Amino acid sequence: MFKGKARAYTNIALIKYWGKKNESLILPMNNSLSLTLDAFYTETEVSFSEAYTEDQFYLDNQLQDEKATKKISTFLDIVREKAGTTKKAKVISQNFVPTAAGLASSASGLAALAGACNEALKLGLDDQALSRLARRGSGSACRSIFGGFVEWEKGHDDQSSYAHPISSDGFEDHLAMVFLLLNEQKKDVSSRDGMRRTVETSSFYQGWLDSVEADLYQLKQAIKTKNFQLLGETMEQNGLKMHGTTLAARPPFTYWSPDSLKAMQAVRDLRNQGIPCYFTMDAGPNVKVLVQKDHLDKVKTTFSDLFSSQQVISAFAGPGMTIIE
Amino acid sequence: MFKGKARAYTNIALIKYWGKKNESLILPMNNSLSLTLDAFYTETEVSFSEAYTEDQFYLDNQLQDEKATKKISTFLDIVREKAGTTKKAKVISQNFVPTAAGLASSASGLAALAGACNEALKLGLDDQALSRLARRGSGSACRSIFGGFVEWEKGHDDQSSYAHPISSDGFEDHLAMVFLLLNEQKKDVSSRDGMRRTVETSSFYQGWLDSVEADLYQLKQAIKTKNFQLLGETMEQNGLKMHGTTLAARPPFTYWSPDSLKAMQAVRDLRNQGIPCYFTMDAGPNVKVLVQKDHLDKVKTTFSDLFSSQQVISAFAGPGMTIIE
Repeated sequence: MFKGKARAYTNIALIKYWGKKNESLILPMNNSLSLTLDAFYTETEVSFSEAYTEDQFYLDNQLQDEKATKKISTFLDIVREKAGTTKKAKVISQNFVPTAAGLASSASGLAALAGACNEALKLGLDDQALSRLARRGSGSACRSIFGGFVEWEKGHDDQSSYAHPISSDGFEDHLAMVFLLLNEQKKDVSSRDGMRRTVETSSFYQGWLDSVEADLYQLKQAIKTKNFQLLGETMEQNGLKMHGTTLAARPPFTYWSPDSLKAMQAVRDLRNQGIPCYFTMDAGPNVKVLVQKDHLDKVKTTFSDLFSSQQVISAFAGPGMTIIE
Repeated sequence: MFKGKARAYTNIALIKYWGKKNESLILPMNNSLSLTLDAFYTETEVSFSEAYTEDQFYLDNQLQDEKATKKISTFLDIVREKAGTTKKAKVISQNFVPTAAGLASSASGLAALAGACNEALKLGLDDQALSRLARRGSGSACRSIFGGFVEWEKGHDDQSSYAHPISSDGFEDHLAMVFLLLNEQKKDVSSRDGMRRTVETSSFYQGWLDSVEADLYQLKQAIKTKNFQLLGETMEQNGLKMHGTTLAARPPFTYWSPDSLKAMQAVRDLRNQGIPCYFTMDAGPNVKVLVQKDHLDKVKTTFSDLFSSQQVISAFAGPGMTIIE
């Protein structure tokens, strides 16, 4: 039996991945930079066997339908090609996220699956190669191979597009990310479709590309100098800019809900009260608030009062993908 | 006594005026196109006299402070130069808008003042010259000289930048605009400051300029062919794009409130129910919904239920500036 099991954590981009230049290889239009977090993770076990007649994919103890299984099979095909095998696989995946939080991330899932496959088939891939492999399953998964601050080099082909950790002298250990779970409805526009529509039709997309490198440079300076204000401002500005691109797409769309705006305003109000904290959002209505640990309680209390304590979950810097058992 | 009185109506841009290329002459970066509406207007009486030792400005029966009076005086100086007079003036202005609606528009106010000055000093300005003059007081005021659909030609100097009506064969008579008064708070960022910050710092501003002419062309096609869906979609897309530019400004900002998003979602829901209606927003949280008269009742009921009936005001196409009494 060829079997492996791995755990990987979700990551939140401070400089966003927004747009592919190659859809099949999942090569991004720009570098991105994320923080891996400890609160949400996926554990995935994979086994390859001659006995299986087809790939099977269990997520949270539920056998998945054809569509979800197809995505996993496509990824497994890449792995099988590397390993020189045709064995089918059984994938058993468990998401450790708050129920229905809408945060079941493909990043942690595909990073864990890449790690599990490496173990199961004794591929001997190093972290860089694992990052490349995870990228093929889901772009942002390449960052979840590593802990702490992680940069994804966009590269120009399969070989040159992978993530690596950013040295930070433990800066991330002073930080927390507060997740505000604002909406459990299924998204109207998936992140995949949203970025494609934006790249193809938004008159702002060139402006995004023209300015994202300066944002990235500034964010790396903030990490290097442990400047929390610069880190937060840069993250917040880059996130707002990403969301601005969707308003010039044809047709235009937004991931924001009324509660998203309420949360943004509350973050600004906290700053006006002298509590440094900054928000970012991804392809959905949830808001994530970056804060130093010193001010975490105040931020959690504020948002528990504004929404409900069930909607407020805090996370700290998390580790990279690990093999378990 | 040199005295004149005029009434002018507010207008809502379907293709937005967003950015100046000359701050003192108020020359815009792009053409804009508006609909003059009958619901909100200003009546202004001006008298010039040797007896006055300084300009006085009464708005809604209140003598205005130095700052507000200064703006009017600067405009009156332009008028006095044209007339070859140094007489000071008394300006008595009445805004006919719902109390505290946050819709007291400088467009109707300055268009009425321009008309009143023309009358008082017998300047003999035709509508095009009046539009130019009104523009010097407040950019969008140049459009309120005319009724119905109005285009503001950006031009390249004082002489070439003015508005003119767009022939429409009565298309506007089938339309209504529903104003949703969502927030009475003073704006954080004035439209003047907002557009300046956007022009100077937003990485999306070039994308706005590159695409606004195509939007304008499409909207004029919609008027020509009386295509309500194309009119609405083009207006909505152009408005969202204008608001998108602010998210890439440094620092970024937004005019949206949580209720603005609630209103946008409700407009989309109405469309999904088969009621064609479209939204636009200006430099503030209020939302304006364009609808055909046939569907006006349904739209008003929907928003009265969602917010309150006091917050919902409907308007129809209105006339240009007129001399009264």
